Amino acid sequence: MTHITELFLFSAARAQVVSEVIKPALERGDIVVCDRFYDSTTAYQGWGRGIDHEGVIKLNTIATLGIRPDVTFYLDIDSAEVQRRKTLAGLHADRMESSGTEFYDRVRGGYLEIARAEPDRFFVLNGKELIDVLKEKVWDIVSQRLKVLKNKKTGGSRC
Amino acid sequence: MTHITELFLFSAARAQVVSEVIKPALERGDIVVCDRFYDSTTAYQGWGRGIDHEGVIKLNTIATLGIRPDVTFYLDIDSAEVQRRKTLAGLHADRMESSGTEFYDRVRGGYLEIARAEPDRFFVLNGKELIDVLKEKVWDIVSQRLKVLKNKKTGGSRC
Repeated sequence: MTHITELFLFSAARAQVVSEVIKPALERGDIVVCDRFYDSTTAYQGWGRGIDHEGVIKLNTIATLGIRPDVTFYLDIDSAEVQRRKTLAGLHADRMESSGTEFYDRVRGGYLEIARAEPDRFFVLNGKELIDVLKEKVWDIVSQRLKVLKNKKTGGSRC
Repeated sequence: MTHITELFLFSAARAQVVSEVIKPALERGDIVVCDRFYDSTTAYQGWGRGIDHEGVIKLNTIATLGIRPDVTFYLDIDSAEVQRRKTLAGLHADRMESSGTEFYDRVRGGYLEIARAEPDRFFVLNGKELIDVLKEKVWDIVSQRLKVLKNKKTGGSRC
């Protein structure tokens, strides 16, 4: 499979889940939590595979119907730590993971670039911290954000 | 399946066939003949399904790696003739064909719009003409075009 084909297939899957699940949930007023969204496409297919950045952004906008998360977390670990954890867990590499350390480093660089570009939305957490510490940091940011969104809503604007 | 998902899946299929078959063939200097290419996506997904035109064009460019045909033929028949032929042949409607007459008319309008926008490349032929007449018309245009391309090539430029 070529990198471009892979990009389109991920976009197809995202388009379907956005229309079927995410958009209806937001319209009901639900809070939606996703494990991976369009930032992963920007990082993996754009930065990792080297596909034209503007094209990836355009595809993301079409696939998500323009829906953007209010807050995003990236649990950051380096490739040595990835390897250590995989060995510990006896895991085999999947399609993305088997693309090698250089690929992983480009993807990670992509995520960190998104963090630099969108500091109000995209938070980088140190993935080596204890799970309880991470949980608390995530909850601090989320609860703060929920207050802001609630105030906006009370004020009559759509969040 | 949503219209956007459909658009991405057609683009995925096109990206793969371009990289695997069409681009290597062109690089060998072969002549490539396709039954449907990106104009079908513009007509069906753009005009037929009503997806943002600029987005479809961008996706087409990514999927085809920017490869464009030297000449394209559209065998034009109206929806009544489509119905007549299907009934004659005892054919069942496929996914696209079962989208109804209004959809077909929008798709046809899209193809005719491409013809207006790109008259040097895109030729509309009357699909009700006899097959031998159509064959001759196609060959007239193709052979003329081959001469031009051959001359260009002799002149040292890449066609």
